[in-house]
Parts: sequence; structure tokens; C-alpha cells
Amino acid sequence: MAASPFSSIRSTPKISAPAALVVPRRRSSVDLRSASANPLRVQIGGAAARTSRIRARIAASATPVMEEAAAGKESGSRVSTVVNVDLGNRSYPIYIGSSLLDEPDLLQRHVHGKRVLVVTNTTIAPLYLEKVTEALTHGNSNISVESVILPDGEKYKNMETLMKVFDKAVESRLDRRCTFVALGGGVIGDMCGFAAAAFLRGVNFIQIPTTLMAQVDSSVGGKTGINHPLGKNLIGAFYQPQCVLVDTDTLNTLPDRELASGIAEVVKYGLIRDAAFFEWQEKNMQALLARDPSALAYAIKRSCENKAEVVSLDEKESGLRATLNLGHTFGHAIETGVGYGQWLHGEAVAAGMVMAVDMSRRLGWIDDTIMNRVLNILQHAKLPIVPPETMTVEKFKNTMAVDKKVADGLLRLILLKGPLGSCVFTGDYDRKALDETLHAFCKN
Amino acid sequence: MAASPFSSIRSTPKISAPAALVVPRRRSSVDLRSASANPLRVQIGGAAARTSRIRARIAASATPVMEEAAAGKESGSRVSTVVNVDLGNRSYPIYIGSSLLDEPDLLQRHVHGKRVLVVTNTTIAPLYLEKVTEALTHGNSNISVESVILPDGEKYKNMETLMKVFDKAVESRLDRRCTFVALGGGVIGDMCGFAAAAFLRGVNFIQIPTTLMAQVDSSVGGKTGINHPLGKNLIGAFYQPQCVLVDTDTLNTLPDRELASGIAEVVKYGLIRDAAFFEWQEKNMQALLARDPSALAYAIKRSCENKAEVVSLDEKESGLRATLNLGHTFGHAIETGVGYGQWLHGEAVAAGMVMAVDMSRRLGWIDDTIMNRVLNILQHAKLPIVPPETMTVEKFKNTMAVDKKVADGLLRLILLKGPLGSCVFTGDYDRKALDETLHAFCKN
Repeated sequence: MAASPFSSIRSTPKISAPAALVVPRRRSSVDLRSASANPLRVQIGGAAARTSRIRARIAASATPVMEEAAAGKESGSRVSTVVNVDLGNRSYPIYIGSSLLDEPDLLQRHVHGKRVLVVTNTTIAPLYLEKVTEALTHGNSNISVESVILPDGEKYKNMETLMKVFDKAVESRLDRRCTFVALGGGVIGDMCGFAAAAFLRGVNFIQIPTTLMAQVDSSVGGKTGINHPLGKNLIGAFYQPQCVLVDTDTLNTLPDRELASGIAEVVKYGLIRDAAFFEWQEKNMQALLARDPSALAYAIKRSCENKAEVVSLDEKESGLRATLNLGHTFGHAIETGVGYGQWLHGEAVAAGMVMAVDMSRRLGWIDDTIMNRVLNILQHAKLPIVPPETMTVEKFKNTMAVDKKVADGLLRLILLKGPLGSCVFTGDYDRKALDETLHAFCKN
Repeated sequence: MAASPFSSIRSTPKISAPAALVVPRRRSSVDLRSASANPLRVQIGGAAARTSRIRARIAASATPVMEEAAAGKESGSRVSTVVNVDLGNRSYPIYIGSSLLDEPDLLQRHVHGKRVLVVTNTTIAPLYLEKVTEALTHGNSNISVESVILPDGEKYKNMETLMKVFDKAVESRLDRRCTFVALGGGVIGDMCGFAAAAFLRGVNFIQIPTTLMAQVDSSVGGKTGINHPLGKNLIGAFYQPQCVLVDTDTLNTLPDRELASGIAEVVKYGLIRDAAFFEWQEKNMQALLARDPSALAYAIKRSCENKAEVVSLDEKESGLRATLNLGHTFGHAIETGVGYGQWLHGEAVAAGMVMAVDMSRRLGWIDDTIMNRVLNILQHAKLPIVPPETMTVEKFKNTMAVDKKVADGLLRLILLKGPLGSCVFTGDYDRKALDETLHAFCKN
């Protein structure tokens, strides 16, 4: 029943964008100088630069994470960096760089108590569980590590699987001073985080995201949770980790489709608040797809910085933070409509962003050129730009009606408005535009 | 298998307390003047008065909650009062008095959004659901009320039952601006509170506790959660309500055994920090058992004030707050050992308090007279003073090993130390005393 996202890419878009999409020629050599020479001098452009309400201090440390580690690794010294997520007494660092899992101290300084529960899945455990266990215990025989290996996939992000984490924690007699470690992608991070939030009403946790999606999205924001059969992420908690460790080497084992899924979120940050970053992506997409470590580290860092700034300004998602959900309302409807796990999250978000941008265009809020640039960059990343054929207008409407951004019956959406890098979160839009977009992207 | 707590009361205590317990003669007329004439001039005695670290402002408003309501009701005007739980931007009021459910405004001022989900059980729904629905909607046709009626009892305080709340909330398409209302005892309050904490990562909730236990215990502190098959309250959240409404009239339908269970917690407050309140209880136990509304309202108010003060000083249970668990470590072991729901929580706590007091006595930390007064007051309330015969030393030790107060393998306990109204939370005690107490109270 559920169509592959890639069959959708090949299908003729029913949207009214130009029939022939012009893919601009790219430079044959990727220009990373602006990123790698001064990776810490980041300009937060677009909407962010304009806001005068910035209370957050988003610091990107100028010191390499591990000087020793950096010494022997050329690329390591260039990309190792720290993004501090500033949330008062719940602030935490995101370490980004290659070979960070070879540095035991980095993890161990954030372990509380003597006992650790690593939550991972059947795909990641054979690849990295031993390495992480070694990093947690190296030179410290006091630390004991338990692990629970969950089935892999969004369809297991449910209460039944979550209970396996609680079962393991209770059976292992873990107490309040233990630390949960999430080793895996977004599903593992969300479930482990919620388990940590709820076990004994809250224990410490550390995230080691191993997908680009998890590194640029769930690394920041403290959103944890599970799905309900009728909707995504309907049960959960806001809960912050002690630290996030992003070892870019873990992306070497990531399938192409998953890499592209993460890139969808990277594109999103450019669209909602950072035009300069979007332009950097337009120039460097080939390097990202080729997994150039410096390009990846820069994209992760700048994504985390953008998200950290938004989250610092609005931790509990009362308004501004909702802008991080560009394309997600349509995207969640796709994920729910085709069944969790059929489309990757970023794939659904990519098609959802196109729909949100199409709607913004219909409202006359953005220039047509933005639509073209969005289509181009997503297609370059081999991401879907239309929903699957099985999606109907009714399916969209049913799922969107239970979206968390509905307030008192009114669906609020994130839409682009103004120049590139500007967006709004609003329920004040012409319903006709939403209907037109839904009908343009669905057969019935 | 599980023994009735009352068979235990009749069994000969194996503890070394005096074989013949002297029950002091009581006044034939209950002296409530000190409580009802100036119910708001409460002296927080004992340990509380001594602490110089008090940062909390615990206010008991001098104004009756509802002047109109009070006008026509003699007792109402004397007992209606507000205890403010001061937790910064998560502060909330506890309204205490009779006929408060007849005052729609009191509830409606705390409802966020237009939609309410009342979570209650099969026992309470026939008694109060209609009344609460009327109070929520009276004069306000904008408010729509859904309800979910759960099976009654501690044994249903599990993930399966919790899912019924989420199912109802999702099926009803409730959004973030809805309000959950807990109508029932502690189990309903704990489950509804955890559901509210986790649904869409947090919605507003209101507590309407209908048991004395819930009124004096779960009204304050924001502890919510469910049980795991291997332990009580192992999964949950700290989450504060918008308000708590205690209508003392709901106690008129409470079975005697449940009333006594609540009294166990009232006694606890006296023992851990309020000697004057303990003395008041010794004088007024008969009035409490006879459900004198003024005596009940005073006991609830003073219990909530004591708990609010402790919680304000230590919201996340790092130390001081743990003292509220006097008797609970032993008590939880009893509840787990005999199976949830066989013994009421307060019954288990009563026997647990006797064990904790016995251990304190063995350590030489308290005078023998305190032990006698504890035995006397609990027996007067018809509460058990020894664990059921099925409890073994091994059962106690197994459950206590997974207690939340274990830190790095060391079991910390709340024990009395010094004059009446003084206690400590410590892992620094002679293990021999714990062993002796366990063996004194268990056959094997």
C-alpha cells in the first residue's frame, strides 16, 4: 500500500511549480573554506539576526574538544567543536567531531553514579555498542554497563517497546544515580530520553546520536516520547540530556537514504531562519552527500546552533519553537497515512516542506524563486518533493486535526513569509490556500 | 495468601514494645477551639520551627474561599481555607472546605482551553462525576467535558490502564490547551497526573481528591506515576496541578478503612516535623474517626501545609523531601510483598512507621515513650502496627533493594532522632539495627 518515496519523486509533480526544474550547475570543487577555516565564526543570519529579544547565549567553544585527539588527526582538529545549549541549570554541551568515541573522558565526565544503561537497537549494537561500552568503562572499573537492544524502526517507537527499557532498568535494580545512554537514531533517542524522564521520575541521560537526522534534530530541544497508534509523538516529555556526543565517524555506516533524510532537516534550518546557511548548502550539497567530514561537521554544528538558539528562546514550544516544525504538519500526516516507518521522517518532512512552501506561495507571502530553490536543493539530495500517491486530502485533514499545534480547534502552521530565511507560525491564513495545496498534491 | 491488615492487628506484636499498651483516656468532648477559632494561626513546630533555611512562603489565606457559599453554611465558613503551594511559576492553591463542588467558579477559573477530560474510576463516577461535570460547565456552555472511567484499585495503576487515558484523549482529539481533571483517590491522581504530564508532552491538570489519603498526601508535591510489576511508582514524573480542590463532603462516602489509611499519613506529619500537630491528633483522633468536618478540614490543612513547606524547600526530593517517606520504605515492601491493593497504602505505611520507629529506638536515637505514643495513636485509628505474617526478612530486603532511596547501592532510611517531631534521612546507621527490626517483625 505505502508507496516508496522515490517512486513519488519520479511521478510528475501535480503542483503548479515550473514543469521543468532548473538544477543550477555547481562548482566542481567544493568550497568549504568559509566553513572550515573559521568554523566558529558563524553568522546567524535572517530572522535570527533581526530579533532583539535574544536572551540566549549560544557559545561555540574555540577550543578543540580533545587536544590530544586532535593532535594526531588532521580533520579532527578542524571539526571538533562544542555547541553549548543554554538552558539555565539544564544547560548541556554538544560535542561534534570525528573519533570522539575514542575519548573516554568525554563521556565519563557526564556519567552520574556508577551504573549505566545503554539503550540501542539491533542495527547499531553490532556496530558501536562495544566501542561505547569501552569508552564508558576505560580506566574506570567502578562503572558497570548494562544494555537493552530494541528492535530497529519507527514502528517500534511505542509503549510496548518502551516497557522493555523499564523492565531492564528495574530488573537491573538501577537507582536514581544511574545514567541512561541513547545510542542510535532519533527513535532510540526519543525512547531512551522518555524512559530516562520517567524512570524513578527522572534519571540522567546522555545522547550518542548515530544518524544525521538525530544529530541535527533530536540533539537539541529535549523532546522525547513515543507514538500512539493514532498519532506521532503524542506521549512524551521535555527532558534535557547531560551531554550529546556526535561522532561524525558513525555516519560512515549510515545508508544513503538515511543521510538524505537528515539533510532535509538541515535544509529546514536555512529556510526558517538562516539564509546564509541555505546558500552554503546550495554550494556544498555534493560534499554533504559525499560525506565529507568537514562539511558534515559544519552542517551539524550550524544546525545545532540554529536549533539551540530557538530552543533557548522558547523551551516549551509556545510559539517561536514551533517554527522548527516547518513541513512537519504535512510530513506527520504522510508518516501516519502510509504507516510509521514506510517513509523516513526526513523524507516526509521534505515533501511536507514543499507543501508548506507551495501554500506560502499561494498566499502571496513569498517569491516564486524560493519555491524553485527549495525544489532544486531537495531534488539534489534525492529527497521526495510530493507526498505518496496513496495520500488523500481526507487523510491529510484527519491527521492534521490531531496535530499538537491545533489550539482550540484552529490548526496553526509554519509558513514562509518574506525573503529567504523568514517564516511565521500562524493560524491566521486563508483556508482556501490550504485546500488548494492539499488538492494540488493529492489525487483525491 | 495476603493477610488482612486487621488480622495482623489482632496478632501479638513480636516487637519489644510493652506487651500491654496503655491507651490514654480522652476528653469526652473534642476540643477543636484551637483549630477552628483561629484555623489560620498555625504554629509549625518541631523541626520546622528550628530550620533557618526556610525559603518557602506557605500562606493560608484568611479569606473564606467562597463568601457566598460560606454564608449559608455554618461549618463551611469555619473550614473553608486555601493553602498556597509556593513553587515559583508552578505555584498553585489547595482549596479546602465543604460544598466546594457547588461553586463552579472555583474550578472554572483554573480550566485552560475549552475541553476537559475527567479521569475517574468505577467507584467514584456514580457518586461525583455528574456533580463535577456540572461544576465544570455551569454557566459556561463553551466547555465540553469528556470522561474516562478506569477500574478501581492500586492493582490497575499500571501502563495498560494508563493507555486507556491516552486512548481517550487521542480519540477525543484533545489538544494542548485541554485540561485533565483527576477525580478520585491517590491512584487516579497519580495516573491522571502522569497522563497529563506525558500527553502531548504536558497539558494542564486539576486534582479533586476524594479520599483523605489523596487529600493529605498527593495534593502536594507533584509526584505522579504508575507501578511496575517489580515495584511501586517506578515510572512517573514530577508534575504540578493548576489547583487542588478538596471538598470535605466527599469524605462522607469514604469507607472506614480508607479513612484510617489517610490518618496514617496525617500521623506521619506530626512525627517527622510537627510535634504540636501530633499532640492535637492524640486529643482529636475520635473526632477525626467520627468525620467531624472541622476536625477533618484542620487535619487536611495542617497536613498540606507541612507537606507544602517541605516540598517548597526541596521540590525534586534530594534530601529533606525524603523525610515525607517515614515508614514508606518498609511500607512499600509490604505492599509489594502482599500484592498491590491487598493492603491500603496507609495501612502499609502505619506498620512501616512502627518498624522505622522501632529501628530508631534500637539505635538509641529516641526515647521509648515515643514508641508507645505511636503504637497508641495508630491502634486508636484501627491501623495495623505489624506487617502481615506472610512477609519474610528476604521479601523485605528484596523490595527495599530496588527502593528509589537507594543511592549507589546504599539504602537510606527516614528514622526518628531526638525529641518528638524530629527525624533524619540517612544511610549512616548500624546495619545490625535494621536486621534486628526485620527479624523482630518477621517470622522468618
